[in-house]
Amino acid sequence: MQNFETFLLENLPTSKSIHPTYEKALQQMLIAGGKRFRPALLLGVVAAYNSLMLDGARHAAYAVELLHTYSLIHDDLPAMDDSPLRRGEPTLHVLYDEVTAILVGDALNTYSFEVLSNAPFSDYTRVKLIQELAKNGGLNGMVLGQAIDCYFENKPLNVADIKILHTNKTAKLIAASLKMGAIIVGQEELGDKLYAFGIKLGLLFQIQDDILDVTQSSEEAGKLTNNDEDKNSFVTILGLDVAMSEANALADELTHELNSFDENLKNELSPLLTKYINRHKN
Amino acid sequence: MQNFETFLLENLPTSKSIHPTYEKALQQMLIAGGKRFRPALLLGVVAAYNSLMLDGARHAAYAVELLHTYSLIHDDLPAMDDSPLRRGEPTLHVLYDEVTAILVGDALNTYSFEVLSNAPFSDYTRVKLIQELAKNGGLNGMVLGQAIDCYFENKPLNVADIKILHTNKTAKLIAASLKMGAIIVGQEELGDKLYAFGIKLGLLFQIQDDILDVTQSSEEAGKLTNNDEDKNSFVTILGLDVAMSEANALADELTHELNSFDENLKNELSPLLTKYINRHKN
Repeated sequence: MQNFETFLLENLPTSKSIHPTYEKALQQMLIAGGKRFRPALLLGVVAAYNSLMLDGARHAAYAVELLHTYSLIHDDLPAMDDSPLRRGEPTLHVLYDEVTAILVGDALNTYSFEVLSNAPFSDYTRVKLIQELAKNGGLNGMVLGQAIDCYFENKPLNVADIKILHTNKTAKLIAASLKMGAIIVGQEELGDKLYAFGIKLGLLFQIQDDILDVTQSSEEAGKLTNNDEDKNSFVTILGLDVAMSEANALADELTHELNSFDENLKNELSPLLTKYINRHKN
Repeated sequence: MQNFETFLLENLPTSKSIHPTYEKALQQMLIAGGKRFRPALLLGVVAAYNSLMLDGARHAAYAVELLHTYSLIHDDLPAMDDSPLRRGEPTLHVLYDEVTAILVGDALNTYSFEVLSNAPFSDYTRVKLIQELAKNGGLNGMVLGQAIDCYFENKPLNVADIKILHTNKTAKLIAASLKMGAIIVGQEELGDKLYAFGIKLGLLFQIQDDILDVTQSSEEAGKLTNNDEDKNSFVTILGLDVAMSEANALADELTHELNSFDENLKNELSPLLTKYINRHKN
C-alpha cells in the first residue's frame, strides 16, 4: 500500500482562502493514517485482473477512504461517540472545534464523489462507481447503520438486529470496495459475488473490533477503547467467548470461499485477509 | 413549480428499518418546503431550450435541493447557528436530537449524488452534473463559505472578504444550478455565461437575506431573524442604506444582463427573477 499512501499525499484536498486552519483540518485525518483496509481490498481486486489499471484505481480507492474518513470524523463528534482520539491523534473537534469537525466531514463526503467523477475511467465506469459508493455509503447503508447504532444505545438489540446494524454501518462499505474493484476491471458478475463475500468480511471485521475493544489498550488500538459499554456490540450480547467462536467460524468460512476464487484473486486477497481474519486471535 | 413539488414528494428518500424515526426525519425538512429557488433556476434554463427534457431535469433539480437542504440542516446545528426554526418548522435537532440532524444531513449530501448518478441522462451528462454539483457544493464551494462564516463570527471582515464568503457559501450553488440546466440541454458555452450571472445573482440573494434579516419578523421569514448580530453580514458592514443601494445596483445589472439573453431564456427567467430581485424592496 506504499503507492496508495504516496497517491493520497499527492492528492490531498487543498483550499487556499482567508480561513487560517481549514485546509490543514481537511487534510489532518487523512494524513493520520489508518489501516487503509478498504482501499487495499479495492486495489487487490484490480491487481488480480488488470494491474495496468492500478494507477487509475487509486482514485477510486481514495474516494472510498475519503468517505470512510468523513464517517469517522462525524462518528467521533461530541453528539455521537464523543471520542478524543482517532488514528492515534486527537480528533478534529478536540484539535479545533465542533464546527470544523462537522464541516470537514461534510466536505470529505462530497469530495469522495468529486474524485470519482474526475477519475480516469470511462463515464460509464465513473457512474457505476458513484452509484455503488452512494448506495452503500449513504442513507440505506453506512449512515443508516450509524443511526441505528446511536438510537439503540442503552437499548439492547438481539443478534439478528445487531447484524443488520453492522451490515449497514460497516459491512456495506467494505463490500462496495471489493465490488468497485470488480467494476473497474469490468467483471460485474464477479462484483456481485465479491459483494456478498464483503458483507461477511465486514461482519467479521466488526466482531473483531468489538473483541479488540475489550482486549486491547487505547495505545495498542490508536483510539479510545473500553468506551462502548452503552453501545450494542457482539461482545456485549454474545459474551467474549461466543463472540470469539463466531469470529473464528466466520474466518474459516471466508477462508473457504476465498479458496474458491480465481487463482489470481486468491493470490492478491489471501495475504491481506490472512492478516485481518486472524487479528482477533492476537 | 407545482410539478417539482409533486416530483419531490414522489421521490422522497425512503428507509425501512428497525429505526422508528429515521425515515421520517430524512423526509421532514424536504417536505417542509422552502422557496425551491435553485430547482426553479435549473428548470427555467431547461424549459427555455428543450421542454421535453423537463421530466428528466427534475431529477437534477431535486439533487440540488437535496444538497441545499442538507446544508441548512447542518448550518442550523447547535454548534453552528443554533437555530430552532427553519422553513416555518422546528429544526431537526429540536424535533429529534443532534445525532439525527447530523446523520440526516450526511445522508442527504450523499443522496444528492446518488440521485444524479441514476438520473435519466447519458453517462456523459450524469458525470458533468456530478462534477458541477460536487465542485460548487463542496470543499472549495459551499462548505468553504460556511467555514469562513463560522470562523469569522465576531471578527469583522472587509467587503471584499465578505464577498468571497458569500460567493462560496451561497452564490456558487445558485450559479451551479443555472449551469446544470445548461449542461442538461447541451449548451455548455451558455453554461459558463449563466454561471457568472448566477454568482452575481447569489450575491444579490445574500445581500437581500441580510437586509430581510433585520427588516422582517421571524413569522414572515419562516426562520429566526435578527439572529445574526455576531455574523458578518452586508448590513453589518455597509449599513442598511448602503446595502440597499448595492442590492438595487446589482438588481439593475442583472436585469440588464438578462435582457441580453436569448428570447426564450429571458422569457423563462424574467418572471422568476423579477420576483426575487425586488424582494428586498418590500
